[in-house]
Amino acid sequence: MAKGEETRQAILAKAFELSNVIGVAGLSIGRLAESTGLSKSGLFAHFGSKEALEVAVVEEASRQFVQDVMVPALRQPRGEPRVRALFERWLAWGQRPGGCFFVGATAELDDRPGLPRDALVQACKDWIDELTKAARIAISEGHFRKDLQPEQFAFEEYGVMLGAHTFLKFLRDPLSLDRAREAFERLVTTARSHAPRAR
Amino acid sequence: MAKGEETRQAILAKAFELSNVIGVAGLSIGRLAESTGLSKSGLFAHFGSKEALEVAVVEEASRQFVQDVMVPALRQPRGEPRVRALFERWLAWGQRPGGCFFVGATAELDDRPGLPRDALVQACKDWIDELTKAARIAISEGHFRKDLQPEQFAFEEYGVMLGAHTFLKFLRDPLSLDRAREAFERLVTTARSHAPRAR
Repeated sequence: MAKGEETRQAILAKAFELSNVIGVAGLSIGRLAESTGLSKSGLFAHFGSKEALEVAVVEEASRQFVQDVMVPALRQPRGEPRVRALFERWLAWGQRPGGCFFVGATAELDDRPGLPRDALVQACKDWIDELTKAARIAISEGHFRKDLQPEQFAFEEYGVMLGAHTFLKFLRDPLSLDRAREAFERLVTTARSHAPRAR
Repeated sequence: MAKGEETRQAILAKAFELSNVIGVAGLSIGRLAESTGLSKSGLFAHFGSKEALEVAVVEEASRQFVQDVMVPALRQPRGEPRVRALFERWLAWGQRPGGCFFVGATAELDDRPGLPRDALVQACKDWIDELTKAARIAISEGHFRKDLQPEQFAFEEYGVMLGAHTFLKFLRDPLSLDRAREAFERLVTTARSHAPRAR
């Protein structure tokens, strides 16, 4: 890695860590200068603008998410074990100070059209695609029932995580993780066999 | 209603409508003055501070939520019909411009300790208690199985709504409401009878 690239990577790691706690919108070049000991002009040279910094932070978050959540989960056997590993790694990811970066950033950027929001939407869609794909593989492995809709499975799994985040971080409910795990078990259980029919 | 109280109520209705779109943190006394045609000093006389205005807006949102969601749902027969009515009214509530006030405000106030956050946490807890109570009644009416945990049911229902909000508003997925309804049906179906056992 070239020296400039190494410095940029170190700055981004710090920027991600900071914005996970104070929010991506709250992260300023000035604040980042304080935390890194670099000059504001030096940081401007690396990123060019606050908007470009935000995009870079979202990309750094995605990079770390792939590394911490996806890569280890994808080492698990195809099918239900991999679905479970993705969920558990995701729960663990949400336990860092500030909670899940993506949920926090969604709240911040939702009403702010622009490149950072676009980057974040793409990151979330990629993740939902990954959850969908894992459910689809579990069907083809015979672990989940054939008529399961993998997109619906991913939607519900995402909802469980959003609930876990809100109950933990906003409502400060100590049972949040237990509830999320129980909801996930119900999701997997009904994905395995035919659920009892509605009326 | 006294004249002063009537004016305050009209201002609050406008303040709620505005903050549902621009966010409760984005609502300033100046902005509210523009929308109502009242003077800033007059508005200060009513609310005293930006913080007090935010608390009043959260309380107004709760008042409208009770009126639009809870009161009509509580007219439905006890048990599953009422659980369903609460969910459908809640979905409809989230369809106004800006989406669900409470989800948006949660994102804004989560990291801002203070009275507005406290008021919002209380409003969300009251709502979760109401969902829990409706599930508990459905158990006692024999509609839901006896070993269902009503708090778990409410957690999962809340997660479905958060998913619906994020998929609709942030990801702009046109299938969001269909997915939310299907998730809710699965929740109700497994609440009715014993779910298939895990492994």
